[in-house]
Amino acid sequence: MGDSYPEGVYIVGLGQVPVGEHWQRSLRDLAVDAMHAAMADAGVNDVDALLVGNMLAPTLSEQQHLGALVADWSGFRGVEGATIEAACASGGMALRQGFIAVRSGIHRMVVVLGVEKMTDSVNGCTAAGLAMAADGDYEAAVGLSFVAINALLMRRYMHEHGATREDFAAFAANAHRNAAGNPCAMFPRPIDVDTYLNAPIIADPINLMDSSPVADGAAALVLVDAQTATRLGKKAVRISGSAVGTDSLSLHERRSLLELDGVCLSARRALGMAGKRPDEVDFVELHDAFTIMAVLSLEASGFAEYGEGFRLGRAGEVSRAGRIPICTMGGLKARGHPVGATGVYQAVEAALQLRGEAGDCQLAGAKVGMTQNIGGSGATVVTHILEAV
Amino acid sequence: MGDSYPEGVYIVGLGQVPVGEHWQRSLRDLAVDAMHAAMADAGVNDVDALLVGNMLAPTLSEQQHLGALVADWSGFRGVEGATIEAACASGGMALRQGFIAVRSGIHRMVVVLGVEKMTDSVNGCTAAGLAMAADGDYEAAVGLSFVAINALLMRRYMHEHGATREDFAAFAANAHRNAAGNPCAMFPRPIDVDTYLNAPIIADPINLMDSSPVADGAAALVLVDAQTATRLGKKAVRISGSAVGTDSLSLHERRSLLELDGVCLSARRALGMAGKRPDEVDFVELHDAFTIMAVLSLEASGFAEYGEGFRLGRAGEVSRAGRIPICTMGGLKARGHPVGATGVYQAVEAALQLRGEAGDCQLAGAKVGMTQNIGGSGATVVTHILEAV
Repeated sequence: MGDSYPEGVYIVGLGQVPVGEHWQRSLRDLAVDAMHAAMADAGVNDVDALLVGNMLAPTLSEQQHLGALVADWSGFRGVEGATIEAACASGGMALRQGFIAVRSGIHRMVVVLGVEKMTDSVNGCTAAGLAMAADGDYEAAVGLSFVAINALLMRRYMHEHGATREDFAAFAANAHRNAAGNPCAMFPRPIDVDTYLNAPIIADPINLMDSSPVADGAAALVLVDAQTATRLGKKAVRISGSAVGTDSLSLHERRSLLELDGVCLSARRALGMAGKRPDEVDFVELHDAFTIMAVLSLEASGFAEYGEGFRLGRAGEVSRAGRIPICTMGGLKARGHPVGATGVYQAVEAALQLRGEAGDCQLAGAKVGMTQNIGGSGATVVTHILEAV
Repeated sequence: MGDSYPEGVYIVGLGQVPVGEHWQRSLRDLAVDAMHAAMADAGVNDVDALLVGNMLAPTLSEQQHLGALVADWSGFRGVEGATIEAACASGGMALRQGFIAVRSGIHRMVVVLGVEKMTDSVNGCTAAGLAMAADGDYEAAVGLSFVAINALLMRRYMHEHGATREDFAAFAANAHRNAAGNPCAMFPRPIDVDTYLNAPIIADPINLMDSSPVADGAAALVLVDAQTATRLGKKAVRISGSAVGTDSLSLHERRSLLELDGVCLSARRALGMAGKRPDEVDFVELHDAFTIMAVLSLEASGFAEYGEGFRLGRAGEVSRAGRIPICTMGGLKARGHPVGATGVYQAVEAALQLRGEAGDCQLAGAKVGMTQNIGGSGATVVTHILEAV
């Protein structure tokens, strides 16, 4: 068949719930809405397995066991389901496990779901929950919250490389500018440099505008093998690279504070699998949980030299018109960061770009996209390469 | 090569920490000990990926992100790692994901680890944590604990089928008798029927001797492909069947209260994959979290007619000398039930039987074993068929 897809794993359906504060909708409602949207997009009404990326349901919703719960609640009782957790990289890790499952030949059609419900908690504390991504014995137990961990990194980076607040402002402004065209973004409003510079400090030097927001959200993907993609006849996106790299959870154990080895390993492995160099990547949905993480991950992924990544913001190189666009639909900063769902939102957005369906956020001629989802301050890094076919 | 293994997924290493109350050892200590034991058993010092089955670390240890944490702590910083959760079936589900990963060809050597630390909690409540395996909105929120859920099932079963306390006593006694030969069992002491009948009631009709104990533990497996198994030259155990079935989390939504559809689906799928009938299975490591679950899962797996399973205990059919031995090294009841680790302990024990290394617990001529790990009261069921090669 001339127009059949070559062997591989394909995204044929995607769905997302707008990121925000969903006071009227529970964890399971959000999950089912995203899952059904993705299946409708794919034009399928059956599924072999469901993999759910989630981090905080035990702490904030007093609910575990989401695989079977969502399988049942979505109308697919009996279907295999499991929860995949890797802190804030849970969504990307669920995508990774879905990719492996389709590649194995055991499943032909897998739904990958990321879901997080952070507002309206039963008894839990969000900051304490997020701190479980760090080392409980050596970081969280001494009161180091996640914003404090990132503040240490940002302060050290400013000290080592002479980066200023204005340099970081450019990353926040870029994210908000990009979010303006995304109907699922939590903060679809541009901000200017003064807004950034006048924002309240959270953990010096990190201010409110360096920080991604606590949010609710759910996003889903339908992954299939080549034969199923061909049969469905939908515009598919190929997953040509998929990899994970890890590092110590705690900052003090790392080889380097500012050179993120987990990111480097993950990006190299994914690019190698796809047979791509960094300069062949058209855009990156990266993990800007804090502006410093955008800078550090650009460097460790190979898009800038170590110590130079901060210059890409003010130079406009990370804008949608620039050399290496990032966070093209708002990123964690402005689309929002429902932690266990974020990695799936990134892949949904990359797939929209590659299908030419990103609306006001559309990049011209995007053929190769990278998504990179980070757990902790770089301890788990999941990178995927997506390509238009 | 005449003695090379045929294509498939093989267990070539196994390790376990004795189940019990490990007041002096943390979650990560237990995890690393089991992982290193499995790798030493396999004779390997490298690994492609680590999959960690765990349920309660967020609630009891205030720690998530165990994939990267254990990868680092065990000396394998950088290696891919993820946490797999499916309530009390987390260990079995980690094995399932490891099986899929090796089958995919993406990884050739995967460590599957199950770990749970239930004593010495930071702030959490064990019963509240376990209730997150049930439906939070419709069961746990109204105060239905896990033992209460099982009490409803047991009471209904006694009413429908005329089973007596003496019938259930036989399952508890069998588990304890079998544990006596297992150096890793928490309660390696036989009990008699009077001990059972005089045990304190927890949630009528469930008494202390119907119930598996809260415990700490960790167990690990090294999974490899055929080529690696051949190269290592170890006595390998083949995973010939692997499957998951699910059902609603809440009891009231199910087709039947006593016919566990998740178990039936899971067992049929796994047996079908292995090409085996129930009567070709030599023994079953089943999920006797409560004695009623042993009875219900024997029936739904096809080893007894519905409503007849309770007779197998007093008839001696589930003893090591019987027609269908269960819990050959003590089961959840007497080996202990460190929830997220249990599914891996089951596979370790089945592999020991198939390697002929089960010591005082050894079955004569065991060639085909089944392991079945259940999350919730039957909502996630993971079944594996293991065969001697």
